[in-house]
Amino acid sequence: MAASFGVCRLHFRALGGLDKFCLGLEPQTQVRFTSTTSALKAQTEKKTAKAAKESRTFQAIQEERKEEAERSVLISCPPKINEKKFLDYLSKHGTINKHFFYNSYGANAVVEFSSRESIASLKESINIPAVEHEAAVPFKSRLLSLKWPGSQSSNHPMPKFKEQSPPSINEITQLLSERDSMDEQLQCLTETLQLTEENISLRFLVCSLLRDIAGAYFPECIIRPFGSSVNSFGKLGCDVDMILDLDGIYATSQKKGSGLSLEYQVKRGASERAVTQSILSVIGKCVDQFGPGCVGVQSILQARCPLVRFAHQPSGFQCDLTANNRVAMKSSELLFLYGKLDPRVRHLVFSVRCWARAHSITSSIPGAWITNFSLTVMVVFFLQQRNPPILPTLDRLKELAEKLLQEFFEFYGNFPFNKASINIRKGKEQTKPETTALYIQNPFETTLNISKNVNATQLERFVALCRESAWLLQQKEILKQSSDSPWGFAALLLPSVTSGAGVKSRRKRKLEPASSRIKNLLDSLKIKGGETVAKKGSANARR
Amino acid sequence: MAASFGVCRLHFRALGGLDKFCLGLEPQTQVRFTSTTSALKAQTEKKTAKAAKESRTFQAIQEERKEEAERSVLISCPPKINEKKFLDYLSKHGTINKHFFYNSYGANAVVEFSSRESIASLKESINIPAVEHEAAVPFKSRLLSLKWPGSQSSNHPMPKFKEQSPPSINEITQLLSERDSMDEQLQCLTETLQLTEENISLRFLVCSLLRDIAGAYFPECIIRPFGSSVNSFGKLGCDVDMILDLDGIYATSQKKGSGLSLEYQVKRGASERAVTQSILSVIGKCVDQFGPGCVGVQSILQARCPLVRFAHQPSGFQCDLTANNRVAMKSSELLFLYGKLDPRVRHLVFSVRCWARAHSITSSIPGAWITNFSLTVMVVFFLQQRNPPILPTLDRLKELAEKLLQEFFEFYGNFPFNKASINIRKGKEQTKPETTALYIQNPFETTLNISKNVNATQLERFVALCRESAWLLQQKEILKQSSDSPWGFAALLLPSVTSGAGVKSRRKRKLEPASSRIKNLLDSLKIKGGETVAKKGSANARR
Repeated sequence: MAASFGVCRLHFRALGGLDKFCLGLEPQTQVRFTSTTSALKAQTEKKTAKAAKESRTFQAIQEERKEEAERSVLISCPPKINEKKFLDYLSKHGTINKHFFYNSYGANAVVEFSSRESIASLKESINIPAVEHEAAVPFKSRLLSLKWPGSQSSNHPMPKFKEQSPPSINEITQLLSERDSMDEQLQCLTETLQLTEENISLRFLVCSLLRDIAGAYFPECIIRPFGSSVNSFGKLGCDVDMILDLDGIYATSQKKGSGLSLEYQVKRGASERAVTQSILSVIGKCVDQFGPGCVGVQSILQARCPLVRFAHQPSGFQCDLTANNRVAMKSSELLFLYGKLDPRVRHLVFSVRCWARAHSITSSIPGAWITNFSLTVMVVFFLQQRNPPILPTLDRLKELAEKLLQEFFEFYGNFPFNKASINIRKGKEQTKPETTALYIQNPFETTLNISKNVNATQLERFVALCRESAWLLQQKEILKQSSDSPWGFAALLLPSVTSGAGVKSRRKRKLEPASSRIKNLLDSLKIKGGETVAKKGSANARR
Repeated sequence: MAASFGVCRLHFRALGGLDKFCLGLEPQTQVRFTSTTSALKAQTEKKTAKAAKESRTFQAIQEERKEEAERSVLISCPPKINEKKFLDYLSKHGTINKHFFYNSYGANAVVEFSSRESIASLKESINIPAVEHEAAVPFKSRLLSLKWPGSQSSNHPMPKFKEQSPPSINEITQLLSERDSMDEQLQCLTETLQLTEENISLRFLVCSLLRDIAGAYFPECIIRPFGSSVNSFGKLGCDVDMILDLDGIYATSQKKGSGLSLEYQVKRGASERAVTQSILSVIGKCVDQFGPGCVGVQSILQARCPLVRFAHQPSGFQCDLTANNRVAMKSSELLFLYGKLDPRVRHLVFSVRCWARAHSITSSIPGAWITNFSLTVMVVFFLQQRNPPILPTLDRLKELAEKLLQEFFEFYGNFPFNKASINIRKGKEQTKPETTALYIQNPFETTLNISKNVNATQLERFVALCRESAWLLQQKEILKQSSDSPWGFAALLLPSVTSGAGVKSRRKRKLEPASSRIKNLLDSLKIKGGETVAKKGSANARR
């Protein structure tokens, strides 16, 4: 597997007040990582079109998806549907660029027209449901229902439904075990879990639908997805994190200098935070009262970063809307750029995340767990810390194989978490400024710890699992391909011996006495002169 | 004083589900009340233009005012203003039809352009305030602030400021006493208290500004003023009652018949009432959080007719927004039509209301008082009950003079409130269906009592004051013009002997022994064989 592109643009826009977060790069700076082998060059030329598309800036990609979403509608459909008739009916309003069907509380379709005028034409022709109309809020969104009265002939083919959920750990384990190499396993894992084109379109469409609600009062606003929906590390089924971007409202248009001038009378707030809370509280109320299919709306306004949380049933997404959170967009862009450097960066992140999820190191429930974002930063840090460092030197990355995963586990199985912090701005360990179990510096807001929530117990479990997984990979036995039981990466997803819960032998591993197994484990770790905080995990080892 | 117009159109629109409230008139029916005397005919011809304007339907008048409001902006101004420069500056955006200045928490101007495009052009050129912009909600309304930096020369004339508040009772008393006849007093009272053209424009503008907030989600909605703002009986300073009219949203545009059809997905509510509450709660929240100058916002959603109440500081109005309250518009139209039949109808209503306010029979605070709407219906009922009836016979009305006010007091000073109800649909007394002190049938919702809130004490005070005022008018003495003390109607506004509070002699009236005065009073009342509920007021009389 090789890097499929040669040039990656680190394109940072100038963003008022955020210059200090721009990783020391000047605005508009382009950092080129050029691959040197002729094989790679040939491959690059072959894929000119794809590369051209992929070399677009993060902003350009987001802008295109946003624009596509604005030309799209989401239609709830009856269970049986004649796709051709459906498209013919909608084509009366203009050319359809794309469409797809999926299931979420029934059949749904996303239809993208080639022009925004088609949306206007379509909406003109649609009514508020006539029955009991006064017991419904007559809010006209781009969320529609298809009525198809009478019986439909069932001899036409049913359209394909695009899957929007990830496979289960068991299904993944099964799937991976059928591959030919661990390298292929990791690639397969990424391809199985990553967001599909359709899923990303649906995420942008949900943002666009929410923008219609917010845009009622703030016509220049944009609602942008951030985090895993756009950073290329998102897994099917992950939440949609959104930012309400009001910057466009403040664009100045009035000439200065003349005597008289007018300005809008506006409601003042006690602080920027108070205004953000006020705006989010109104949007939360609107979503709750007017938004079809929006349920479980919670306005969590006292959080450090105030947010509105809700479930959007027509898409099946759990959504978090924040405002005034520009740093989050920069974080997303940073990860996106790291992911673009080499496919293996993403493979490593997906495998570490999948492994962490399989062992309940991460959870969908808020708590003292390590977050996926923290794990991703830990991967980046690890790749910077390798000797020689892998990030950002692309040449070095090519020389390395899937040993990266094993080394990742060895690195963090042995990291001096009790005194060192993880800092991807500097690319090296730093002394922890506080006593929280895990300290990962926020790369943009450098005084913040992105893993402040993690407690000692959770960190100990993580370290113990890293050590065990490293040990398993060192044994080589699990790397032997097998058709009748999980092997390779799939074996790492089986219940752990150190996790305490469901202790089962991993894939016919000989049950040596515990002391012997731990001795091997300790031998395998190149202890860099540091103690670890893995007190529980290392308690047996010290006997 | 004579009727200034000959034709009055009772123009009832067909309104789904409200046919039964239409006073038995078919939709589109025109009832003509033609005055027959030649004097009146001559007058009518002379005032053709005015008559043409005045003969427009209620709906046409409301529509024109609404449309004017949509072309208007409200601008907060510095204390000193050069009117010419101000108008020159604004004229860059188009022709100005009308403008006026007034005071409410500082100087303000209403500017009406001749075209809506001017508003768009103006808004294009305006910014959100630049200082501390992030601590303000960047909602762009038609409520603007004029900045006029530097010192203005003070040698230009200041613009005239239009008064938006009524004179005090003392000022009214003074003003009336300078008139030449009681007839003129009543006319002067109406002219002094009634809403000015500017005040009505400002009311429609506040509705239009609120519509911009509601229209964000319901583009076809209209916010209509109703009640005293439009029924021609409003007094300067009265509240602005508004209805959110969503009927336009349900206008059907889709052809039926074909197989497939689309409809909007909408949020369902448990009932029409629940949906109304939901919509009002969101609008209330938006007004509270985003509406500049909107303070004291209360969402009173559990009321029989759920409402949002707020004070609009830029206009100085107290506003009540309801929804789904179509009957209220019909009530407003009915009173408007009665007011149009003859100017004396309005004079009688204004004088009765002013008299009631002077004696605290009515109050701006909610409570067990009689409302202005009830008083107005009582006037209408009295005019129907006179023998021969005055409403709707215009000829009869002409034969009558200002004796009407005296007869009004005699009528209600003697009305069998304990057993009879007031019913202007039938134009006659009916047996009370319940034991509330005062029963006035709602003319549109006939099972409701519009004066349910009035308790026995308040009714007794009303009856006692009617008797005393009738008695004073019968004495003729107060009708004698005087330059040094209140006379005529002004004398009726002086503190009462029966009210208990502040008992002072009215205008040099000889203080006869109480028993003698009451005897005269009783003699003056033609008791129609009925007891009255005025127990306290008649306690002395029975001695």
